[in-house]
Amino acid sequence: VVTGGPFRPGGVISLTTDFGLEEPYVGVMKGCILSRLPGATLVDLTHGIPAHAVPIAGFWLGRAWRYLPPGTVHLAVVDPGVGTSRPILAAEAGDSVFLAPDNGLLAEALRHESATFRHMDPGLPERIGLGPPSATFHGRDLFAPLAAELAGGRLLPADIGPAAEPADPAPLPEAESEDDVIAGHVILADRFGNLVTNIGAGLLSRMRQPVVEAGTRHLQIEAAYGAAGANAAVAVINAWGLVELAVNGGRADRMLAMSPGSRVRVVDGTPA
Amino acid sequence: VVTGGPFRPGGVISLTTDFGLEEPYVGVMKGCILSRLPGATLVDLTHGIPAHAVPIAGFWLGRAWRYLPPGTVHLAVVDPGVGTSRPILAAEAGDSVFLAPDNGLLAEALRHESATFRHMDPGLPERIGLGPPSATFHGRDLFAPLAAELAGGRLLPADIGPAAEPADPAPLPEAESEDDVIAGHVILADRFGNLVTNIGAGLLSRMRQPVVEAGTRHLQIEAAYGAAGANAAVAVINAWGLVELAVNGGRADRMLAMSPGSRVRVVDGTPA
Amino acid sequence: VVTGGPFRPGGVISLTTDFGLEEPYVGVMKGCILSRLPGATLVDLTHGIPAHAVPIAGFWLGRAWRYLPPGTVHLAVVDPGVGTSRPILAAEAGDSVFLAPDNGLLAEALRHESATFRHMDPGLPERIGLGPPSATFHGRDLFAPLAAELAGGRLLPADIGPAAEPADPAPLPEAESEDDVIAGHVILADRFGNLVTNIGAGLLSRMRQPVVEAGTRHLQIEAAYGAAGANAAVAVINAWGLVELAVNGGRADRMLAMSPGSRVRVVDGTPA
Repeated sequence: VVTGGPFRPGGVISLTTDFGLEEPYVGVMKGCILSRLPGATLVDLTHGIPAHAVPIAGFWLGRAWRYLPPGTVHLAVVDPGVGTSRPILAAEAGDSVFLAPDNGLLAEALRHESATFRHMDPGLPERIGLGPPSATFHGRDLFAPLAAELAGGRLLPADIGPAAEPADPAPLPEAESEDDVIAGHVILADRFGNLVTNIGAGLLSRMRQPVVEAGTRHLQIEAAYGAAGANAAVAVINAWGLVELAVNGGRADRMLAMSPGSRVRVVDGTPA
Repeated sequence: VVTGGPFRPGGVISLTTDFGLEEPYVGVMKGCILSRLPGATLVDLTHGIPAHAVPIAGFWLGRAWRYLPPGTVHLAVVDPGVGTSRPILAAEAGDSVFLAPDNGLLAEALRHESATFRHMDPGLPERIGLGPPSATFHGRDLFAPLAAELAGGRLLPADIGPAAEPADPAPLPEAESEDDVIAGHVILADRFGNLVTNIGAGLLSRMRQPVVEAGTRHLQIEAAYGAAGANAAVAVINAWGLVELAVNGGRADRMLAMSPGSRVRVVDGTPA
Repeated sequence: VVTGGPFRPGGVISLTTDFGLEEPYVGVMKGCILSRLPGATLVDLTHGIPAHAVPIAGFWLGRAWRYLPPGTVHLAVVDPGVGTSRPILAAEAGDSVFLAPDNGLLAEALRHESATFRHMDPGLPERIGLGPPSATFHGRDLFAPLAAELAGGRLLPADIGPAAEPADPAPLPEAESEDDVIAGHVILADRFGNLVTNIGAGLLSRMRQPVVEAGTRHLQIEAAYGAAGANAAVAVINAWGLVELAVNGGRADRMLAMSPGSRVRVVDGTPA
């Protein structure tokens, strides 16, 4: 297979959706993929994105996609506009291809990448043998077959359709840094009750002694969750390079009574 | 491998259970399959069927199975009678094979199919090297190994046992149509809070202007969830050809205060 | 590949974590594995271990691992000490290799096995091309790549590091047997509400008529859940050889008002 760019399809497809696992929506998408590309390698990133939470899907896809092999097709379907005229967006960035509804989902993953964006040509589905899609499940009717064709190298990214400007990014608040004070927010509480913020470690680099203000607490950055005492609150730089609030052996969301949107500040605790 | 029918095993097994993912029950089944058939392709349809909900398992398997590749073995284990004398049922329909406890689970998937049904010969497990099964986990002790043997072509559907009449279908209410009024029910609320009914789109074809009566609301059929205003209720024909009630960007189960069993009617809203 | 022991890597990795499936933690680990070992076979045992519940992870891994194919690498990450100095433990037992934080997790799986234990050499990550690990996600930064190298045969178990004594077992209470009375506990309630105890069937073998005392109830051991009447409590020997309390068609945890830690006794009900 010869491609114009550096994308060399490797038969790997990652999946990110808000479909959950209670109904067979994801399984049906996988069946559609395997029907077109037997032997495809399917990697669930997560199907637990809260319903319709495009910004959270973008956040996690942005953190996760670089850990997949080169040549992966990243399929992300959080699609409150399914069945409306919102286009299907494909992006080629380095050695990877992305496919998603054009609702801002891909912006976070690609904001530091040189990416080529395209809108799916409305005639493409028929050309690859697809019938009219249903009103409610384009994951099955369009996205899965397209991902299979891309991952199998039978469809090149450039074949998806004309170059296009993607929709505005799905809005996640950004941390603001001013006068040695960084003002950010909790983005999400994960399964452990850990509170992931939008404050990147880079913003702290000028500070002598960063102190994280979370509610009434003032926390220093520690090297591990376990650096705090049992059931004590702790701030760490997490695996994504972000300030995270946790409780050693407990749940920060409950103990700190904080949730997505809660304000978090970092100040420089050492007088000059 | 020569088979009597058109089933050509492709090494693909779909799994549908009420085992959930909290305990390693599904993982153990997969280990058993892979121990007998390395390289098997395993597709989880869902393991989130409510505990013992045979009709819901049948409903979803009925919707999903056609999206898997030809030559798939569909393994479905929702088995409140595990360890009792209920037989194990195998069915061959077209290019697919099904394996389930004989409790009505397969009826919905196969009710428009010409299928051959067999009960597992009680001597078969020993012939394929299996010991006596446990009292509580035939998914591991019988179903998984049988599915592996079928998917690998070492066991033909006809080898499962003698032809048999399957148990009565697991009862899901059916919509009734009379005098331009269709009376149906909500079958389930999915992860999004969307209410899937048992009213097929075909029943509406004679109506000039179908109007869905859901609680106190009267809804027209729209082309997409997003055709309604934000947080407005909407009725659509969903991806399975059924009338579905949703809320654009919200949860219909909460906003309409409806749940499985709730009555839904469709009337013809246009006077002749 | 020549190995010192009987472990012959088969490209299969089982995964047991408390990461859940809401965030892409597991998917990212799989991406890391597939980046190093394309074509690896990944089997999720469970990611639903309660947060930080090392004993429960050990319990389930102990029950599950023998159902995976020979040559499997069993990766288990329940790791409240991530980022601290707790070592990484590898164990070779028969035809399988295990990898986990050295916090007692592996003890239950290996307590009847002749196993060789090793602590990871701190210089190993750099030798296989890994950078410094993050503070919070060694599953991604260390465990997944190590598992891939082991499963692919490029790293031998003996290469992991020096022989070591593993940490104390993660404590699960053990049943005690004395004077024809067995005193045990509920270990967990599973998805069905079934109450799994720590009372092994072997302890009952001397009894003429074992009677299980659960709260105010006295239950005989039945051959199947369905041997009791609808919604009646029942005791069975479950698929792991343990006494289990269930309700036929219902939830024992609710009906018996019992939970992990609840006391269960078995007495011999037949006077001599």
